Amino acid sequence: MNILITGGAGFLGQRLAQALLIGELKQTVTSLTLADIAPLRDAALLADKRVRGVTGDLKALLGDGLMQDIGGVFHLAAAVSGECEADIDVGLRTNLDTTRALLDACRASIQAPRLVFSSSLAVYGGDMPDVIADNTLPQPQNSYGTQKFMCEQLIADYTRKGYLDGRSVRLPTVTVRPGKPNKAASGFMSGVIREPLAGVDAVCPVDPATGVWITSPRRAVAGLIAAFNTPRAQWGSRTAMNLPGLSVRVADMLAALERHAGARVAARVRVEKDDIVSSIVGGWPWRFDTVRARGLGLSGPAAMDELIAEYVADYPDAVHG
Amino acid sequence: MNILITGGAGFLGQRLAQALLIGELKQTVTSLTLADIAPLRDAALLADKRVRGVTGDLKALLGDGLMQDIGGVFHLAAAVSGECEADIDVGLRTNLDTTRALLDACRASIQAPRLVFSSSLAVYGGDMPDVIADNTLPQPQNSYGTQKFMCEQLIADYTRKGYLDGRSVRLPTVTVRPGKPNKAASGFMSGVIREPLAGVDAVCPVDPATGVWITSPRRAVAGLIAAFNTPRAQWGSRTAMNLPGLSVRVADMLAALERHAGARVAARVRVEKDDIVSSIVGGWPWRFDTVRARGLGLSGPAAMDELIAEYVADYPDAVHG
Repeated sequence: MNILITGGAGFLGQRLAQALLIGELKQTVTSLTLADIAPLRDAALLADKRVRGVTGDLKALLGDGLMQDIGGVFHLAAAVSGECEADIDVGLRTNLDTTRALLDACRASIQAPRLVFSSSLAVYGGDMPDVIADNTLPQPQNSYGTQKFMCEQLIADYTRKGYLDGRSVRLPTVTVRPGKPNKAASGFMSGVIREPLAGVDAVCPVDPATGVWITSPRRAVAGLIAAFNTPRAQWGSRTAMNLPGLSVRVADMLAALERHAGARVAARVRVEKDDIVSSIVGGWPWRFDTVRARGLGLSGPAAMDELIAEYVADYPDAVHG
Repeated sequence: MNILITGGAGFLGQRLAQALLIGELKQTVTSLTLADIAPLRDAALLADKRVRGVTGDLKALLGDGLMQDIGGVFHLAAAVSGECEADIDVGLRTNLDTTRALLDACRASIQAPRLVFSSSLAVYGGDMPDVIADNTLPQPQNSYGTQKFMCEQLIADYTRKGYLDGRSVRLPTVTVRPGKPNKAASGFMSGVIREPLAGVDAVCPVDPATGVWITSPRRAVAGLIAAFNTPRAQWGSRTAMNLPGLSVRVADMLAALERHAGARVAARVRVEKDDIVSSIVGGWPWRFDTVRARGLGLSGPAAMDELIAEYVADYPDAVHG
């Protein structure tokens, strides 16, 4: 099967690509197209003959036949939360319009492709129960969450019509991410671990008592792959599925950092509250009961220590100082 | 205040216009623009100096400055459920894209206009509780409901951003409507009362045991006006509000017709099941607990007899035979 990953040169896209190339899909991956606004630079991925990096605006690439012969899609490309909040038009264009163009390209395919859509816990907000259940009503309180939720609806309807076989999963915040900060309001959750481990000071823009709902890159990739591999009948409802994660307060993330690397490293984090980030992140829920996903055998990280250990194991070169 | 009603030449639009012209808004109506794809023909409305009928595609009209000096909008224009199910592109264009253009025109206004959006019980479907509550998760099972639900999200986000002051209400099926059948899957609910009363045979396309959630034109208009008149703080959540209605089985609607007009008239209805209509209507919920709307003093019809009596009182000329 020919597979397309949108946002394929991004962090999660590359991690997913690596997993697909070692055979974690039930289908054999004949080719893997990684489409992204940024060029693909990962040497190992570029060296694999099955991999094709395609650079450009996704909507334009779709017009140039990107979906030709594609049997499966992982749609990860998106403008991130901070970006969407700063410019609603960028968010609507990048998240809603481009997703719709992708769905219409799927619809134009001869065989209805299978499509996994990465939605987000950011669909939730407002007046919520203490614990989010699979059937809790999302009431998005930011533009990113609104756009993700709208895409979920469109994917469900296109699936119902048989144009594609869509599965939307809502990811917890994926942390610890390597590399540089992005414009996601959630970006600091990686930063407060990554930077101190690299010997760099970091700012925590929220009250450390803030609770967050996070998962590790490995578990996020496992969730995306399970969404692809699960037979339709077992997948069930066309409504998006909340993936498992870890409920943790930011202070406990920092305590785990200190346990792992000592007080000197942990002291590199200083709290400097940012009202916009605090308002976005503070409005997200952080306790979930993910019955549906657990029924597929998926699980969240056991503790913050696991996420730090995974990061150190996966990116040993990023740890120094 | 200058008011715009989209779908203003439609049945509900005209009824709403009549109510606004006799002063049911808290604000004084300086002018009332009725925009519709079909020309406005109602003589009484045309004779009112405050009324302006504007005919054409809504998106094109918006490009021609329709929103200029408008302070309040009732957005009723939509492709109906049967139409959207038959052609998803018509639905997406008419319901989603045109609503977005309207919201962007509101956003471009100097003062953020107040906007009431008529959504629908059709957002619900799939695996539902026996009784729909204000916070029940919509899982649309048809394209019309999907599009309405997507518009609700966009209106909530534009409201949060301060571009407009939006209030989305989900209407029960409005019945008994006068005039000719339209392409709504729910259209028969009016037809099985209206046609026999006019001496014409009618088809009931669903099993008479089917339960439906309906309200009368007067109560639907009252709900739209209450949505406009209620102060923002009292309105509460930006999530759409379910309006009160009546839970009734189609068989009980027909029994009320017989009580009102006798067995000879009721015998003009014959059951001829239509699979598409049955599937759409049978997938809608019909029992609601509308706590939020009742808190605003709104209520549903007491019984089917009330709806028939209202129709006969409002449209005496449509009853003969």
